[in-house]
Amino acid sequence: MPEESGGWRIDDLARRTSLTVDTIRFYQREGLLQPAARVGRTKEFGPDHLARLERIRELQAKRFSLAAIRALLDADRGVDLVEEVFAGDIGVSYTLEELIQKSGINEKTVAVLRSERLLRDPAEFGQSAYDANDLDMIRAVGELSRLGIPNPILIELARIYVDGVERMQSQVVEIFSGQYPTSLTPEEFVEFRSNADSAAHTLYPLFTRVVEYLHKRTTQRLALKAIELRAALPQTEDE
Amino acid sequence: MPEESGGWRIDDLARRTSLTVDTIRFYQREGLLQPAARVGRTKEFGPDHLARLERIRELQAKRFSLAAIRALLDADRGVDLVEEVFAGDIGVSYTLEELIQKSGINEKTVAVLRSERLLRDPAEFGQSAYDANDLDMIRAVGELSRLGIPNPILIELARIYVDGVERMQSQVVEIFSGQYPTSLTPEEFVEFRSNADSAAHTLYPLFTRVVEYLHKRTTQRLALKAIELRAALPQTEDE
Repeated sequence: MPEESGGWRIDDLARRTSLTVDTIRFYQREGLLQPAARVGRTKEFGPDHLARLERIRELQAKRFSLAAIRALLDADRGVDLVEEVFAGDIGVSYTLEELIQKSGINEKTVAVLRSERLLRDPAEFGQSAYDANDLDMIRAVGELSRLGIPNPILIELARIYVDGVERMQSQVVEIFSGQYPTSLTPEEFVEFRSNADSAAHTLYPLFTRVVEYLHKRTTQRLALKAIELRAALPQTEDE
Repeated sequence: MPEESGGWRIDDLARRTSLTVDTIRFYQREGLLQPAARVGRTKEFGPDHLARLERIRELQAKRFSLAAIRALLDADRGVDLVEEVFAGDIGVSYTLEELIQKSGINEKTVAVLRSERLLRDPAEFGQSAYDANDLDMIRAVGELSRLGIPNPILIELARIYVDGVERMQSQVVEIFSGQYPTSLTPEEFVEFRSNADSAAHTLYPLFTRVVEYLHKRTTQRLALKAIELRAALPQTEDE
C-alpha cells in the first residue's frame, strides 16, 4: 500500500526499520507494539508504529529486558527517572556462567550469593544480562573471602545489607509513588512528581551521593564508639 | 640529662620533635602521651615517647580529633581498619560557617540537616573539621531542593536514609566486635579478627562496592515493580 494512503503494510514497516516481519509480529504478540489499523482487508501501520519500534530498539540497545521495555512503554510517567536508574553499562554483558568464570570465584559461593539474594536474575532488575556492576560486586566478595573473612560472616553481612537496603529503598519508592504519608497536599504532591519527572536524569546520582556520604560517616562514628568502648574496658588476658 | 644515661628531659624531647614544652605537657594532661619515668628528681623521656609524639603528629595531619587520636592510641587492635575508615581528605577543612558559605545553601536548611542528623559535628565521626565529603553532601541536597523536591519530602528521605544506614552499620560493627551472634567458634572468631586487622586497608572500600551495588540493583528492581504495578492499574482521569 503506497504511503500517500497514510498507511504501510507490515513488510513496508519492516523495510523502514530494518527489522524482519517475524520480529515485528513477535513484538505485537508480546504487546510491545500497538495493533495496526484495519483498512478493509489490510492492516496498516503508521508513524506511531515506526516511532515505537525505534524506541524499542533504543531500549534494547541499553539491554533492558522485554518486561522492562513493556513496563517503560506502558508507563506514562517517571519513564526518564527509571531509564536513568536502569541504564546498564553499554558494551559488556555476561551470562551467569561468564560471570562465574570471569570473577574467578567458585560456583558454590555464587550459589550462596544467589540464595542470599545479593545476586538476582537480571530480569528482576529489568535487564537482559549481567554487566560490569555484577562482576565488580562478585569480585569484591571474592576479595573479602581471600582476605580471610569466613563464609558465615560474609553471609551475615550479606543479609544485613540486603535486608537493610531493601527496607530503605522500599520506603523511598513509596515516597515517589505517593504511598508514603507526607505532609504534602495533593496539589503539592502533583507538583513534586512533575518536578521529579522533569529532573529525572539528575535525581538518582544525587541520592547516591547522599547515601555514600551517610555510609562513610556512620561507619566512622560507630567504629569510633566501638573503639572508645573497648579502650574503656579493662584489658583481658588474651588481649 | 645527656643521652648516654638513656633518658631525655622534657626540653630535649621538645627539641627532637620540634614541639613546644607546653604542647607536650598538654598531651600528657590529655592522656595522649604516656607518663615519663622518674629518675631521682627528674622526669625522663625515651624513644617510646618520641615514637608516640610522631604518631600523634601523623594522626593530627589527617585531621583526627583529639578524642579519636586518644581512642586510636589506646586501642590495641583494629587501628589500621579504623584509620582507613576515618581517613579524611587531605588538604581541605571547613568550619560550619565555611560549609554554609561554600555550599550556597541557606542556614535554615543546614539547621534542618543537623536536626535530622544527616550532618553531625565532626567530633562525632572523629575529625577536627568538616571536609569535602560534607560539602559534597550538602551540595547534593541543595541541588535536590533546587530541582523542586520540597522540604517535607527531603526531610522524609533524610530520615529514611539516616535511620536505615544507622541500623545496617550498627549490625556490621557488632559483627566485627563480636557482639553479633554468628556460627563461628571462639577460635574461628579470633582468626577472623586477626585476618580483618591485617587486611584492614582494603576492607572498607570492598564493603563500599557491595553497598553501592545493592543500592543500584535494589532501586532498579523496586522501581520496575512500581512501574509494572502502575501500568496494571486502570488509568484514572488525571493521569
